Amino acid sequence: MSKPLSIGVAGLGTVGVGVVKILAERKDFLTAASGRAMKLVAVSARNKTKDRGIDISGVRWEDDARAMSSADDIDVVVELIGGSDGIARELVETALSNGKHVVTANKALIARHGVALARVAEQRGVALNYEAAVAGGIPIIKALREGLAANEITSVAGILNGTCNYILTEMEATGRSFEAVLADAQALGYAEADPSFDVGGIDAAHKLAILASLAFGQEVSFDNVEVEGIERITASDIEFAKDFGYKIKLLGVAMRGPGGVEQRVHPTLVPEGTPLAAVSGVFNAVSIEGDRVGQLVLEGRGAGEGPTASAVLSDLVDIARGLVVPPFIVPTSHLKPSVKAKSDANKSAYYIRFNAADRAGSIAEITRALADAQVSIERIVQSSEPRDASTGRLPVVFLTHETEEGSMRKALIHLSKHEDVAGKPLVVRLATSGSR
Amino acid sequence: MSKPLSIGVAGLGTVGVGVVKILAERKDFLTAASGRAMKLVAVSARNKTKDRGIDISGVRWEDDARAMSSADDIDVVVELIGGSDGIARELVETALSNGKHVVTANKALIARHGVALARVAEQRGVALNYEAAVAGGIPIIKALREGLAANEITSVAGILNGTCNYILTEMEATGRSFEAVLADAQALGYAEADPSFDVGGIDAAHKLAILASLAFGQEVSFDNVEVEGIERITASDIEFAKDFGYKIKLLGVAMRGPGGVEQRVHPTLVPEGTPLAAVSGVFNAVSIEGDRVGQLVLEGRGAGEGPTASAVLSDLVDIARGLVVPPFIVPTSHLKPSVKAKSDANKSAYYIRFNAADRAGSIAEITRALADAQVSIERIVQSSEPRDASTGRLPVVFLTHETEEGSMRKALIHLSKHEDVAGKPLVVRLATSGSR
Repeated sequence: MSKPLSIGVAGLGTVGVGVVKILAERKDFLTAASGRAMKLVAVSARNKTKDRGIDISGVRWEDDARAMSSADDIDVVVELIGGSDGIARELVETALSNGKHVVTANKALIARHGVALARVAEQRGVALNYEAAVAGGIPIIKALREGLAANEITSVAGILNGTCNYILTEMEATGRSFEAVLADAQALGYAEADPSFDVGGIDAAHKLAILASLAFGQEVSFDNVEVEGIERITASDIEFAKDFGYKIKLLGVAMRGPGGVEQRVHPTLVPEGTPLAAVSGVFNAVSIEGDRVGQLVLEGRGAGEGPTASAVLSDLVDIARGLVVPPFIVPTSHLKPSVKAKSDANKSAYYIRFNAADRAGSIAEITRALADAQVSIERIVQSSEPRDASTGRLPVVFLTHETEEGSMRKALIHLSKHEDVAGKPLVVRLATSGSR
Repeated sequence: MSKPLSIGVAGLGTVGVGVVKILAERKDFLTAASGRAMKLVAVSARNKTKDRGIDISGVRWEDDARAMSSADDIDVVVELIGGSDGIARELVETALSNGKHVVTANKALIARHGVALARVAEQRGVALNYEAAVAGGIPIIKALREGLAANEITSVAGILNGTCNYILTEMEATGRSFEAVLADAQALGYAEADPSFDVGGIDAAHKLAILASLAFGQEVSFDNVEVEGIERITASDIEFAKDFGYKIKLLGVAMRGPGGVEQRVHPTLVPEGTPLAAVSGVFNAVSIEGDRVGQLVLEGRGAGEGPTASAVLSDLVDIARGLVVPPFIVPTSHLKPSVKAKSDANKSAYYIRFNAADRAGSIAEITRALADAQVSIERIVQSSEPRDASTGRLPVVFLTHETEEGSMRKALIHLSKHEDVAGKPLVVRLATSGSR
């Protein structure tokens, strides 16, 4: 049996504690599975004296996590500090350049600096593993990086943020408002005090950028992701969507388009009966289309101590077993630059909701304005409630036929200018066949 | 870059042809991903002259596949011949003992001789990979063998046979009989001329035995799987189940029980709204419960050229990347013998359907007989059709409350003896929480 794999864990929040627990509780099994022991030699966190319910008495404490990157007795640094820059980035970069393997759960770091870090890992022949950074316990990185290597991927679509999915599921189940359910989610610990990273779609966009890189052989580019959050979705949108046979989900979608790759995160109407529509609560799911494998859907818990620590451990087992995979499937020199696809010609059907004056002829005029922009209407619902308290206007909902994105943009300009329309219309895409 | 990985493919049916195609068409990508070229050096099949639409002109033809097991220029043998014994077994065993890696799609071989073959692989330090043997394109072996290594698995439940799932889905959609839909499936190529392996549950049982070994750290034991096929399911069973809020699926289920591990393949009433109930047509799906990860569901195509060849290639890429994992997660010396759990105390609710005389008092007597065996009834449906042509009896359907399996057995003996009951009652389990 080879010499033990020596591990340093930087960050002892929920996930770090989970990792330390599994290393202790599953010791014998992990040793048998890996062919060598895994030994926790150092830990680091902000607060040394806090009781975390784990025994780290025999383990070296580092006040500064960065010391691990040059410690001679550490083979792998597990980075669980978080944040795309600062200590986390410095630690990972130095550890890699010192020839240490790195396991991280840090989606922001990989989404923003993944390729640069992968270059360092490659030069030193070490692993940069980040299974825990996307969709928690779901082995989606392994599936894309190893399991589907034979496939040309045509699309990836996923429910990548459990907080948003919990909020949307609760809004549907209870009919309550976004704000009320968000407040509950915060009280339950499903949402942060500052929820903008989650509900604004940034967290999902970090994950999507990583998946898109793996799927399409391109450099990770968070900046090329179009992002829209769920803040404007109301209980009545969910109700309208349901009447039309759809659920509203925050999806991350990546697919090839004219001249590049589209990467988008936004609320989406997903047809009932498709796998992603059935994913509820804090669960995550990813649907992949490959030219050989067809559709593959993976669903599981996207966050929490157990699932995330499980993913970190799977990365550690791979390293212990001697597996070093190029971080983005192929060496960085083979990755294409990320180029945004031209979106004007993208076709999608749309859900549009706005408040309009309760006036005869108003809908006819609005419909004509849409038709002038080449947007054809499949269905219109004019509701008698909820009437807007300040303007007295009533919600009108349109479902359009498939429309080019450019036409839709023009139509929205017409719409916003119409005197009977109040405020900015809410526009939500219907899922296309690659995003269900 | 290392020297090429030299591959011999034994068997050029659908899957073999798919593998040869991918090796040619994805050559550059696979080389970049693996860090070395993959080179097809030899093939073997029954018919040398058949046109398979692939170019194998530069590749050595072996009339006897077994020659590959000792060819000096072959690093990996891909066994796609099939069958648990005969040439396939001989080829795999000899190749492994000669220090060659083996990739196989042969579920029968692994289910019956997996551990013995793993021992040989271990002694020689080579890989025995069989991703394609279970659930086609779904990377379920990789998930269990690598992705979930941190977890104690508590249950595995899967739709493992696409033919059965297609038949049940079609019966539900069209209301047609098992026999009629089977005949169609045969005409479409979804079912074999001799369908007994599929519809009798044997194929699913092979796959379940493999999954159970990986999940519970035990030796693979096909003989310990209880198997029941879908042959007795009628269109009206599917209709009754639907009225109760269930779909009928052929499930393979493995979970710990008193004194050992339960392994069962049988039709099951799965509650609508759960992930496995939503899996339709030829799709496969596996639901895993792990103590850390919670529930994880993987769904995809379980058969066909593309999905199965995709799985074979993923095994080849792993080998090219230098990954050699113990075939059943841990070395064979760590595997426990497979011991069947005692099933008498197993609790499950049941669906029971039989034909009974259309006589006053008959149902009351039958219900009393069940109560005497400690089986309590949740619901009874007595239908006015279809009346049995020969006996004039009418179908009666019971849903029971949770009942011990021992009690159910006793109840069935009472039931069979009752003069008003014709033939053998159909008994179908309702899914328990570990099997959805």
